[in-house]
Parts: sequence; structure tokens; C-alpha cells
Amino acid sequence: MFKQITIIGFGLIGSSIARGIRKHNLAEKIICGDISQEVCNKVAFLKLADAAIADLAIATKGSDLVIICTPAGKMGEVVQKIVPCLKEGAIVTDVGSVKKQVVKQIQPHIPKGVHFVPGHPIAGTEFSGPEHGFAELFEGRWCILTPLDHTELKAVEKMTHFWEALGSNIEIMEAGHHDLVLGITSHLPHLIAYTIVGTANDLEDDIKSEVIKFSASGFRDFTRIAASDPTMWRDVFLNNKEAVLEMLQRFTEDLTDLQKAIRKQDGDYLYQRFKETRDIRKAIVDAGQADPENMKLIKN
Amino acid sequence: MFKQITIIGFGLIGSSIARGIRKHNLAEKIICGDISQEVCNKVAFLKLADAAIADLAIATKGSDLVIICTPAGKMGEVVQKIVPCLKEGAIVTDVGSVKKQVVKQIQPHIPKGVHFVPGHPIAGTEFSGPEHGFAELFEGRWCILTPLDHTELKAVEKMTHFWEALGSNIEIMEAGHHDLVLGITSHLPHLIAYTIVGTANDLEDDIKSEVIKFSASGFRDFTRIAASDPTMWRDVFLNNKEAVLEMLQRFTEDLTDLQKAIRKQDGDYLYQRFKETRDIRKAIVDAGQADPENMKLIKN
Repeated sequence: MFKQITIIGFGLIGSSIARGIRKHNLAEKIICGDISQEVCNKVAFLKLADAAIADLAIATKGSDLVIICTPAGKMGEVVQKIVPCLKEGAIVTDVGSVKKQVVKQIQPHIPKGVHFVPGHPIAGTEFSGPEHGFAELFEGRWCILTPLDHTELKAVEKMTHFWEALGSNIEIMEAGHHDLVLGITSHLPHLIAYTIVGTANDLEDDIKSEVIKFSASGFRDFTRIAASDPTMWRDVFLNNKEAVLEMLQRFTEDLTDLQKAIRKQDGDYLYQRFKETRDIRKAIVDAGQADPENMKLIKN
Repeated sequence: MFKQITIIGFGLIGSSIARGIRKHNLAEKIICGDISQEVCNKVAFLKLADAAIADLAIATKGSDLVIICTPAGKMGEVVQKIVPCLKEGAIVTDVGSVKKQVVKQIQPHIPKGVHFVPGHPIAGTEFSGPEHGFAELFEGRWCILTPLDHTELKAVEKMTHFWEALGSNIEIMEAGHHDLVLGITSHLPHLIAYTIVGTANDLEDDIKSEVIKFSASGFRDFTRIAASDPTMWRDVFLNNKEAVLEMLQRFTEDLTDLQKAIRKQDGDYLYQRFKETRDIRKAIVDAGQADPENMKLIKN
């Protein structure tokens, strides 16, 4: 599909893409570009790429596709470094969890004759680093592309085929809309998970040990997503501020209503609210998006 | 272990206990007491008990062990109904997710010569009703007993053996302490999950369908626990008000701090908070309490 692909930022996502490219034979050559020499050494040791280079410009030379997999906050910097070496006709894409700010950072630097197709594969684990990647990470997952008005259709089609080859389903939407939808489905849940795990972390030591012991009663579900990469998530919140604050506002209002109902012992209100939420779960199950592992035993 | 056991309230927990008793041969006879004739018919049809009786007093007659498995808010009522039929030397226990209020409701009615051992098996699924129970529900799970100062040791030992026979690990603690620990590990997480799913439920229809589509990016984890039984959870919050409001207060303060940091673009603060929470996850994994199914793929 491509002659040479450069992957910049070789963490969980970058290394999973590299493994997927190998598995499905999507390029003749894979180049790893990562400013950390330690990561480059690891990549070389694990033979995850044909070359691992700490100089991002050199790593970019001659590639038909450049995939930026660094935290969102670094992408503008990265693109400025690689611009001189971008090949005429090459495609640049990214995997950032926010899109409006990323487009704002990258687009102005893209030279004429190079195509920028912003992307976001909705996949990951709570583990970070090249050693944790795996080729199947994107299988059956959504990948959202948010092309600009003037993005050439051919480049979008090529990226669609690329992600489909890795096993993903493709959805195309506008960057701002992406940020709103992900704000409620992903960013707000992560913020809340980080908060509640932080609240527990601040408890007195004796209660904290019991929280760990009895974590299966609900708390544990939050700890997994609160173990996600802190740098990546810092950048998500800094770069999707508006949508996150808007959704957080709605959440806080709803939480205050429930708090009031508990204080006033308003059982009818609590029952009504708790009953409504079952429908969404049902819709997710009906849409085939519920986890098959969901018979997990939690309660109380 | 017992001659005859009565289980009052034959939902997910009650029916799972009945199946466990059968599987491990812990009683000669199991009696189901449930005020819903429909539930009694289902129990009879599924042959989950030797008798299914809508009159709770009659269902209690002659039993050595009476396990109250109704929602917490109904337990005081139940115990008043069955008191005249409690056998001398019988043990009464419950499975309520809150303990202080349940003890307050039940203890005053317990006649001399009858032993009350409050209990809380930390197990369950998001499904309700007798048809969803299974014998293995309590295996490898914690069961907390909160005996009173004057509770006879022999009765506590007998209940310990009973739950151990169903596969549980036993922890003994004071009722108020139980409510505090479960307030943070279970009740607050459920309240927050109900809230965020409710917030999503109130969104405009077109965004709502996308929330369902992309729910795997974090949101989905919350929907499962927000699909738990609304009656049971209403009673939990009405009966553990103080501990829940106390933990909710701390959570809200922490959330406000993060909100401020996002608004002020304080990346260092966000990074620091997000980094701390990884340690708790690690402690849960180290304590063997992390889910083996945890390699679930979520992110962004």
C-alpha cells in the first residue's frame, strides 16, 4: 500500500500500528522517529521498525506516509521539525484524541502538495510504551477521520483503506463535532475516573488499604481508566477544554440534583433517575457495543 | 449445616444463595419467601426452592436460618412480619449493602434466643431477578459480617462457615466502618456512574446515538454499573446518606480543582494528579484484586 511509512512517537499506539503494518504487509519499510534515544534503542532491540532515528526530520525523509503518534501537545512542534523533509505527494496523519486543536497546530505548516488527513483510532489500553503494543489493537475498533474542507478525497480514501486494513471501522466527521462526541464518551469519563481514584488516594492510610481490598465492588472499574498515560491525558484536557468544560458543567448539575435528593431523602427522584440509565445500557448492548466480558461480577 | 433455610426476597442474590446451598448441600430444605406471587411462581417453576410462599411469616416457620435478601428499605418491615414465627435458636442474617441503618431497622425486633448476624456479600451483576442467579456468584468474593457487641460468637462462626462454604472470603468489621469503606468503594462509584450516564441520556438525540456508537472509548465502563437495580440503589443512598454525602463532598472538591486546572490550562497540576492515580491501580493489581479480564481495549 505504501513504500515507506514513518511513525513518529513510538509508544503503545505507534508500536501497535507498526506491528499491524508488518502483519498486513502495508509497507515495504517502516521508520521509527522518536526523540527519545532510549525508545529508539528499545525499538531497534525489539526489531519493531527497519530503522529507529532520534532526528525526526531524517526519519521522515522519503516516506509516503507519516503518522504522528506523540501526545497531542507535541504535534505542532513535531510537524515544524519534519516539514523540510516531507516528500511531495506524501500523506501526513496523526492519532490525536482531540482534533480541532491538533488541526490548528499542524495544518498551517503543511506544504503544498502534501496531504494532511487528521485521524483518531479509538483504541488503547492502560499500558504505555512500545513493548506493550500489539497488531490487533485496532481490530473491530472505530477510527475517526476528520478531513478539512480542502483535503483531497484521494488521500482520505487512502487513509480509509489503511485503517480498514488494520481492522478498523471508519467514520468521517468534522473536527469540532469529534471533540464534542469524544468529550462526553471519553474525556469526561476519564476526568471523573481520575478524580474519584484521586479522592481515594487522598484518604487516610488505613481506609485506603481497605479500598484496595474491596475495590471489586465498583471502584475497580474506575482505576483501570485512571491508570492511562498522564501526559497524553493532560494534553487531551488542555486541548479540548471547551467541550470538556461544557460536558463537565452538565455533569456537575446532574450530580448536584442527585446530592440534593439524597440529602432530602427523595427516594422517588433517585429511583426515577436510576431507572432511566438502564435504557442507555440496553441501547449499547443492542448496538453490539457492549463488552462480551461484561458478565463481570460487581455490585453493592 | 442447616436443617431448613428460608430466603426472603428471591432476586439475583437470594436465588444465587439458594443455588449455592443446593450445590454445596448446606441445608435439607430451602424455603422461598417472597411477597410477589409472580416471583413465587417463577421460583416454583424453576424449582429453585422446596417451597415458595408469599406469606413471609409462614415461610419462616421452622427454619434454623433466615436470610433477608430484600432491598434494604424493606428489611424492617420484613422482620416485623416474621418475628412471630422465628424459631428459638434460629439465626437471622441479611445481605444489605448498608449496615448501620439495616441493623437499626432489624435489631430491635429480634426476640431473645434468636441470633442476628448482619452480613454483606460483595457480589452481584447488573441483572436482577431469580432467573439470573447462579451458584458461583460468591466464589472468591468478600463477604463482610458486622456482628453487634452482644452477638453470640457461635452464631458468627456459623455464618462464617456458611459463606465460606459458598466460596467467599470473610471479613468482620463494625457496621459504621463498613458503611464508610463501601461508601467510597461502591456507593460513590455507582452514584457517579448513574450521574454520567444520566447526563448522556439527556443529550440531544443525534449526539446520543453517537455516544452509543463510540461508547467503548470510556463511557461504556460506566453504563454497566449504571444498569444496576434502581430499587436496591435508591435504598442504598437513602440508608447510607452520611457516608455517601461525606465522600461526595471530597469528590466534588477534587473535581472542582481539576476543572479549575483545565480552565487555567495548568498542565503541571493535571499531570501530577493523573500520575498519582496510577499507584492505586498498581496496588490493586498487586493485591490480586484486579480483574483478569482487564486487558480490555479502551482509550482516548
